[in-house]
Amino acid sequence: MKVVLLSGAIVGARTRSTLREAQKVLTERYPDVSSEWLDLAQYDVQFSDGRTYWDYEFTSDTRHVAKTVLEADALIVASPIYQASMPAPLKNVFDLLPRRALRDTVASLLINAGSARHYLVPEQQFKPVLGYLGAQIVQHYVYVEDQDFDDEAHIVNPNVLLRIRRLVEDTVALANLYRNMRDETPVWYEAGHDPAELEDNP
Amino acid sequence: MKVVLLSGAIVGARTRSTLREAQKVLTERYPDVSSEWLDLAQYDVQFSDGRTYWDYEFTSDTRHVAKTVLEADALIVASPIYQASMPAPLKNVFDLLPRRALRDTVASLLINAGSARHYLVPEQQFKPVLGYLGAQIVQHYVYVEDQDFDDEAHIVNPNVLLRIRRLVEDTVALANLYRNMRDETPVWYEAGHDPAELEDNP
Amino acid sequence: MKVVLLSGAIVGARTRSTLREAQKVLTERYPDVSSEWLDLAQYDVQFSDGRTYWDYEFTSDTRHVAKTVLEADALIVASPIYQASMPAPLKNVFDLLPRRALRDTVASLLINAGSARHYLVPEQQFKPVLGYLGAQIVQHYVYVEDQDFDDEAHIVNPNVLLRIRRLVEDTVALANLYRNMRDETPVWYEAGHDPAELEDNP
Amino acid sequence: MKVVLLSGAIVGARTRSTLREAQKVLTERYPDVSSEWLDLAQYDVQFSDGRTYWDYEFTSDTRHVAKTVLEADALIVASPIYQASMPAPLKNVFDLLPRRALRDTVASLLINAGSARHYLVPEQQFKPVLGYLGAQIVQHYVYVEDQDFDDEAHIVNPNVLLRIRRLVEDTVALANLYRNMRDETPVWYEAGHDPAELEDNP
Repeated sequence: MKVVLLSGAIVGARTRSTLREAQKVLTERYPDVSSEWLDLAQYDVQFSDGRTYWDYEFTSDTRHVAKTVLEADALIVASPIYQASMPAPLKNVFDLLPRRALRDTVASLLINAGSARHYLVPEQQFKPVLGYLGAQIVQHYVYVEDQDFDDEAHIVNPNVLLRIRRLVEDTVALANLYRNMRDETPVWYEAGHDPAELEDNP
Repeated sequence: MKVVLLSGAIVGARTRSTLREAQKVLTERYPDVSSEWLDLAQYDVQFSDGRTYWDYEFTSDTRHVAKTVLEADALIVASPIYQASMPAPLKNVFDLLPRRALRDTVASLLINAGSARHYLVPEQQFKPVLGYLGAQIVQHYVYVEDQDFDDEAHIVNPNVLLRIRRLVEDTVALANLYRNMRDETPVWYEAGHDPAELEDNP
Repeated sequence: MKVVLLSGAIVGARTRSTLREAQKVLTERYPDVSSEWLDLAQYDVQFSDGRTYWDYEFTSDTRHVAKTVLEADALIVASPIYQASMPAPLKNVFDLLPRRALRDTVASLLINAGSARHYLVPEQQFKPVLGYLGAQIVQHYVYVEDQDFDDEAHIVNPNVLLRIRRLVEDTVALANLYRNMRDETPVWYEAGHDPAELEDNP
Repeated sequence: MKVVLLSGAIVGARTRSTLREAQKVLTERYPDVSSEWLDLAQYDVQFSDGRTYWDYEFTSDTRHVAKTVLEADALIVASPIYQASMPAPLKNVFDLLPRRALRDTVASLLINAGSARHYLVPEQQFKPVLGYLGAQIVQHYVYVEDQDFDDEAHIVNPNVLLRIRRLVEDTVALANLYRNMRDETPVWYEAGHDPAELEDNP
């Protein structure tokens, strides 16, 4: 199983800091799970112009980032909230993916924000995008507020750390479940049925 | 495991018809899973007045319906869409439940509607309510349009039937997963930590 | 112009209290505007069973409530949040209305809640329902938290009182605008065009 | 009054085509209203890195685009739907704006999409972003589907053309209303009250 840790901010330290905590839990508790760190601040990704990622230059950051996300078994997304919604650099990664790209992917959310009033943004703005791409979403996201960090962007609220731990556990457990379900896919899914026909998503 | 089949319409035949299909799959494929049929058209439920369900009269329909939903391991909700949102009788059942009532429940959605244009109502209006109650939601819902029924409210679109089959399978698989996860809950969840503190939900 | 003040709670004092403040501003600043107080706690409304309100008994509360809402030029809705969404008694009033019932109505929202984390519920759960019914919605809603009330449910936060004042002013101004726009409706809207064809709503 | 016509697609012809229709109505019916055409396909805008637009280079496209949007009295946004949400290049323009940047702006939406099933995306994904920025949103958006265009991206559905006409009329009428309301702002808004305190938005 491969877990991709995707940091959706191109500036600031808090988003990366929450994701580092998830990474720590992942490597400690699941040493046999491989993981890949994907921080958008370190890449020069182009705006999606309608091409799918494989039409971008072979060595380009755009192709690398989209391909890495696409190949994940599980995707832990860390992101701030911009203007009550997903930041453009993160949305752009999803725009680069082909239809139903995350159909076999489990996705979970680690969101940091300045105000308690945006608590429902992951529910109403992030989840519908991941769901449209076909991801299996871990229900409970972790929402981290400014007061949960110290001045150096370290998380100082122990309950947040426990919630991150549980998020990672749920992500891995769900990824295992869906891998097993795929392996047991009954024959009638394959025989004479275009899987796309069975999709209830436009 | 106990699966509750909840029909959220108090009039009309289509909602009940889609739920009957789910029941058929459930009893055929999972003969050892117990199920309970809960059709709101057959009960006289009172509007929630702030009391929790156990404060309602012992023999009342209100108490029976809320208690049945609360005790489900898995909840398959069939519902029409009224005014681009959840019908009041169904919303009322959820209003009767205590905080985090569905924390140990897997929930899935079977939605029928007259127009393709309301396809996102389950995503944006139903899921956030179930999620707030703590339910683990099956990602892919089944959306059935008028043209998928014949004049007697039978489903005539074979792909819809396959999607219902898959919905039931995913519901049971996810309920099994979460039961196993609860059984394996690590000690640190219990030791010295009020589980409510670990909740990231208001 | 007729403004209906609709209180969507059947228990509790806070929702009614915020609406009383709106009523006070309305009668003081706009003595020529008629208003009607409609508190759901005072009526015995039946669940919508698919009949339109005029098919309910002539003297029934159900018919009275739905008819009053339908005939409003402006509707100020006060409501608590139940389970991260609209309370069933309020949703039920909207379920009773015919298609596009609020097409000529301006609607505004006064929401009280226990947690800052539900600040986006009016935006994501209430507005889409009012919008589907065709209402012209006043953009800025007023969100009142527990700490804004004293023990007797009086609002003690002066900024909340100013926001309510502005909400009433915006509601009346917008209602005047739309009345004027209807009076100036160009001829081509009427000549040979079924207005329903021009609707971009299912 | 200045109306900015903002095209949110960087590829494709349909979005631009619907906006051209709006421009046509605007110049014909309101010759005294000045308008500015802002097509994101023609600019090289950088991802928001947390700086406000005025910190970008004076001659940069990034600064020009954000500044033009900020100075609009009314904003007509044309956009496709990507992955059930706002395209990243359009979201990025909003990310570049300071807090409450559209407080004095009327905004309306012209959305094109391939599927009827995404009809609620403008309601649930676009409006909350514009609303957070403080815009006064024209309630009825225009939703254009593939079948409404011919092969050269011209709109061939006359009802869509009428709806665009009405959208432009509503946009201008609402912009006039809010300009008048600002001119009549009562003294108590200014005296001793920081307007920000009166905001009910985080």
